Amino acid sequence: VDIGGSNLRIALADLRGNVLGRWKASTKASSSPDMVIAQIELGVDQLLCQSSYSPRSLLSVAAGAPGVTDSEAGVVLATSYLKGWKDVPLRRLLESTLGVPASVENDVRMAAVGEHWMGAARGVNDFVFLAIGTGIAAGVFANGKLIHGTNWTAGEIGYMHVPHAIEEPARASQPGALESIIGGDGIRRQWFDACVQDARPQNLTATEIFARASNGDPLAKRVLDHSAQLLAYAAYNISLVLNSTLFVLGGIGVSIPLLNATKSILEHYNEPSRPKVVMSSLGTDAQLMGAIRLALTTARQPIKVESEY
Amino acid sequence: VDIGGSNLRIALADLRGNVLGRWKASTKASSSPDMVIAQIELGVDQLLCQSSYSPRSLLSVAAGAPGVTDSEAGVVLATSYLKGWKDVPLRRLLESTLGVPASVENDVRMAAVGEHWMGAARGVNDFVFLAIGTGIAAGVFANGKLIHGTNWTAGEIGYMHVPHAIEEPARASQPGALESIIGGDGIRRQWFDACVQDARPQNLTATEIFARASNGDPLAKRVLDHSAQLLAYAAYNISLVLNSTLFVLGGIGVSIPLLNATKSILEHYNEPSRPKVVMSSLGTDAQLMGAIRLALTTARQPIKVESEY
Repeated sequence: VDIGGSNLRIALADLRGNVLGRWKASTKASSSPDMVIAQIELGVDQLLCQSSYSPRSLLSVAAGAPGVTDSEAGVVLATSYLKGWKDVPLRRLLESTLGVPASVENDVRMAAVGEHWMGAARGVNDFVFLAIGTGIAAGVFANGKLIHGTNWTAGEIGYMHVPHAIEEPARASQPGALESIIGGDGIRRQWFDACVQDARPQNLTATEIFARASNGDPLAKRVLDHSAQLLAYAAYNISLVLNSTLFVLGGIGVSIPLLNATKSILEHYNEPSRPKVVMSSLGTDAQLMGAIRLALTTARQPIKVESEY
Repeated sequence: VDIGGSNLRIALADLRGNVLGRWKASTKASSSPDMVIAQIELGVDQLLCQSSYSPRSLLSVAAGAPGVTDSEAGVVLATSYLKGWKDVPLRRLLESTLGVPASVENDVRMAAVGEHWMGAARGVNDFVFLAIGTGIAAGVFANGKLIHGTNWTAGEIGYMHVPHAIEEPARASQPGALESIIGGDGIRRQWFDACVQDARPQNLTATEIFARASNGDPLAKRVLDHSAQLLAYAAYNISLVLNSTLFVLGGIGVSIPLLNATKSILEHYNEPSRPKVVMSSLGTDAQLMGAIRLALTTARQPIKVESEY
């Protein structure tokens, strides 16, 4: 299950990880924990029914949540989506509703698990999944394991201070220094500020702006280059801490122009080693594949799983 | 054994980790691997002799080296000290000379092991040891384990790009963006540049400059505040990646004024959580205590060791 701020997605998989069916619904009108759990129950029932499996064949469930998640206790501690869940015992709710073992994880970390299992980071023990969207966050693998941190907030790199980002400390519930410039709203604002005296369309999405850059618009190119420089600083800074040599770019805000611009900047950063940046190979499926991987672990079946996360 | 750029230090310990004796020599005239190994052999023999132990009672040895060290293969890959060791099989050299199992590690990481075992980070599973000196480097613990990274260069944060540090990529064999400002030489240069038109003494060490700041010299205070701000950015950026809530400051360049100035800046950084900064409690013994801890693991004796590093 991938619980998003606007969509809920469910995939049903067999014990080899093959996807047997998919289900999707909006979470816009149903943000309370009880309503989301009811939606998940409905989706799971429909998926089992469509695939002609009995409800008893369900062995486990894993869910990713868009917020600070204690995967040990199975609790979503806080999120700025879903009208602000606080201390929601998501694992317990899933287990009591579906009657099977459940595991929960932060959605960006779950996407990192997906990329490590089946995607662009397969077999790479030290890598970082960078989720680019409204915010900027990272799912960090070191020594082949997910890093969670003391308070379950490892990877909150949207707050990072790099040259040309905001220098002041972030205030509560405000975007961080980095994401306020290169998150979705930040890029739109860069563009808006740059073309305010101009005949260009002012309200464009990050993807539209970067597509214009690829088509030769010099103003859009400047926004792209500035955004890529800040993203490159962030990736490089992370690589210094962990010596993670692979960065997988994902999330709804990622695009080929941003990838290429970031790559060409990082070509100049060789000390002590140059981080490699690639596109997510699973795309929007990264979270779901991560969820399947975690559910397979939780199911504790005699299948081949290489390591526990 | 702590192999430094200018000094070689050895401590002899019993199986409980109690230090039985210490030995010290200069490495200035003896930088080749063979000469350093010969010095270590001499030191170990003298320590055993002084403590009235037979050479046969030696069970294991661990050595820290000031450079990129592959602790799995036991090889010092590169260092800018010791006239530039390259691919030195330090573990094999130690084992064949001393006739006991050996382990080797990067010196900053070894200090982190020491602080985790017996020092300011005892029992803390996610923390960072920051070594402040000529360069700036970190020994990183996550999930209670040392992080080494793909090419054994995790923690090379002297290259970090933060606001007001150098913006260009580092060149080979040159100091990194951060350490060129707040490493020992960087702080001396900040001071020199600030008081060039002045009656103040121009050639002071970082410690002397920061002591002047504590005594009310406004120019020295400006150098201290600027250095602390950059160090605070670096610690905060690392904490975002790992959600490591404890930073232990060590190394020859660390001082109470720098600690206090950094702490008071970080008080304003609460999102998503505020990193705590403390002084190393082992001081210059951090490396040696880390070496003893690693040697105890290598000795594989039935003693209480909580985890393998």
